[in-house]
Amino acid sequence: MQAAAANMASAARRLAKGSSQLRVPLRWRGQAAAAQSRTPQPQPQARKPKTGILMLNMGGPERLDDVHDFLLRLFLDRDLMTLPAQNPTQVLHRVPLRAPPDGGGGGGDGAGWHRAGGGLHPVPPVQLLHHGARGQQPRMKWSIIDRWPTHPLLIQCFSDHIEKELQLFPADKRQDVVILFSAHSLPMSVVNRGDPYPQEVGATVQRVMEKLNYSNPYRLVWQSKVGPMPWLGPPTDETIRGLCQQGHRNLLLVPIAFTSDHIETLYELDIEYAQVLARQCGVENIRRAESLNGNPLFSKALADLVCSHLQSNEVCSRQLPLCCPLCANPVCRETKAFFTGQQL
Amino acid sequence: MQAAAANMASAARRLAKGSSQLRVPLRWRGQAAAAQSRTPQPQPQARKPKTGILMLNMGGPERLDDVHDFLLRLFLDRDLMTLPAQNPTQVLHRVPLRAPPDGGGGGGDGAGWHRAGGGLHPVPPVQLLHHGARGQQPRMKWSIIDRWPTHPLLIQCFSDHIEKELQLFPADKRQDVVILFSAHSLPMSVVNRGDPYPQEVGATVQRVMEKLNYSNPYRLVWQSKVGPMPWLGPPTDETIRGLCQQGHRNLLLVPIAFTSDHIETLYELDIEYAQVLARQCGVENIRRAESLNGNPLFSKALADLVCSHLQSNEVCSRQLPLCCPLCANPVCRETKAFFTGQQL
Repeated sequence: MQAAAANMASAARRLAKGSSQLRVPLRWRGQAAAAQSRTPQPQPQARKPKTGILMLNMGGPERLDDVHDFLLRLFLDRDLMTLPAQNPTQVLHRVPLRAPPDGGGGGGDGAGWHRAGGGLHPVPPVQLLHHGARGQQPRMKWSIIDRWPTHPLLIQCFSDHIEKELQLFPADKRQDVVILFSAHSLPMSVVNRGDPYPQEVGATVQRVMEKLNYSNPYRLVWQSKVGPMPWLGPPTDETIRGLCQQGHRNLLLVPIAFTSDHIETLYELDIEYAQVLARQCGVENIRRAESLNGNPLFSKALADLVCSHLQSNEVCSRQLPLCCPLCANPVCRETKAFFTGQQL
Repeated sequence: MQAAAANMASAARRLAKGSSQLRVPLRWRGQAAAAQSRTPQPQPQARKPKTGILMLNMGGPERLDDVHDFLLRLFLDRDLMTLPAQNPTQVLHRVPLRAPPDGGGGGGDGAGWHRAGGGLHPVPPVQLLHHGARGQQPRMKWSIIDRWPTHPLLIQCFSDHIEKELQLFPADKRQDVVILFSAHSLPMSVVNRGDPYPQEVGATVQRVMEKLNYSNPYRLVWQSKVGPMPWLGPPTDETIRGLCQQGHRNLLLVPIAFTSDHIETLYELDIEYAQVLARQCGVENIRRAESLNGNPLFSKALADLVCSHLQSNEVCSRQLPLCCPLCANPVCRETKAFFTGQQL
């Protein structure tokens, strides 16, 4: 049982890593229990199948000492990314590029959000339902909430955080603030094979701006490029530089495809861009909207997703089974097949 | 007056060509007349300022003989695109790549939609209001409807056309049809400088699928690449090939950032892809959703945009004045400045 669960969790983790188009929950349920639950009369010996919710994310180092090993494993994971040269020697050489030189920001976020949350798009919380009837061989069924880029409560969270942050700009600058929605970029090789992530992030941005009644100019920009190959742009840092040169010196950074704080918000956005780069560029005011973290409305969004998903009785969206049209990742294909093979 | 109007139209045309982020109407109004219109009492000598609506598009050849010159001018226009080698000799060499070898589809579309419509994103209809009071020096004011990617009636039109087309697939294949939203691609140099077009097209796609209750798997794909430099993908043709190899042989092509029929729908989608390529790939069923063309609901969408725009009394959106963060187009900058300099 534990081994099976570990295998499932492993499959789910590989699934989550294999493609950024895989977003959320799995469920896991005993067939017999599912059948019994259709019987209206309560039977003392029968138990309602239990529902488990498994939320996965990429994790993060908790202490400074963990940073090196975390990044090493991250960059060596071929299910997560393929780099032109991906061996320990190459990766060890590359790690310092992303690790804070003084260790700041990399050794956990203080509140442990990387344990509670994760990226909205690339890192799904995962739901599982399992069978609790005694004396039966446990047989689990899994389902997955694989995308939710425009959930109304999610959009509300983002726009609340943006409005709150806009209020902290000087009143006479507020309407000129350029909102930069910053998402984790992807290699163009992944974009060009048909990963739906950029399209979905674009939809999130539009819905948030609609909620804000298009109060400010804005752009969707892309951060955290790694390696020498081309990635999707415009890059967040070059955008900040370019806007400052054009005289737009009041900027609000909004992490739009991350849900919780971690190195890409606390170090890359807050230190590399909002402190170091901003100073070089002569920014007047630069702020960063709070991540969703423990916002109760965000928890409500997740709860609503789970409820709607359970009511739908669907294994996954109609979108999930479709591989990238130019798919190059057999692990992703296998894990999609795992879910589409489930019968609820 | 005519010269002024011609200049304005020319500016608007350059504006439209200068950046794909410029979408729609201008308005043009006499200051005196605008002041008079605030006076509640009717005055026989005063006239309500007239409103003109100028809709621009890229145009298209009407007869087969026009194709060569049309494409030549298109590819030589540096406000529209910059190519690695852009002189008449190079372009003449390239023209046949895009012109139908037998002339089919290139010599007008039969219904002249290229005169009535245009691209949704890259080619704006343009509205202008002008002052009709006699005996005064005409002074025009312009405003512009610069983006409308998720207008509810626009979304309704797209989803109506998709539903209609899905009904024409065999019933047992219908739910497996992969919907390919095909938009005109952009060079990565334009994407990476911060053109908001891909984000907005992504938002259109999401809203249409939401309207369709996510009934089918789908992808946003990109067509009409020109030249040897990298463009945004996945390319429509490679996507068709890849999906067929994966066994997805029921496909619906949806032109999503074009509003009317022209060479990229009638020739590229209908002939190159849905006939020639589909045959090579062993497609079972491939269809193409009708363009918006003369759909009365589309006309209603445009009318609603104009009404809302007039009521807003805004020159343009808050988004329009923001140049691409890594702007490389002085003509686009000038034309944006022209609009933001208008006082309504």
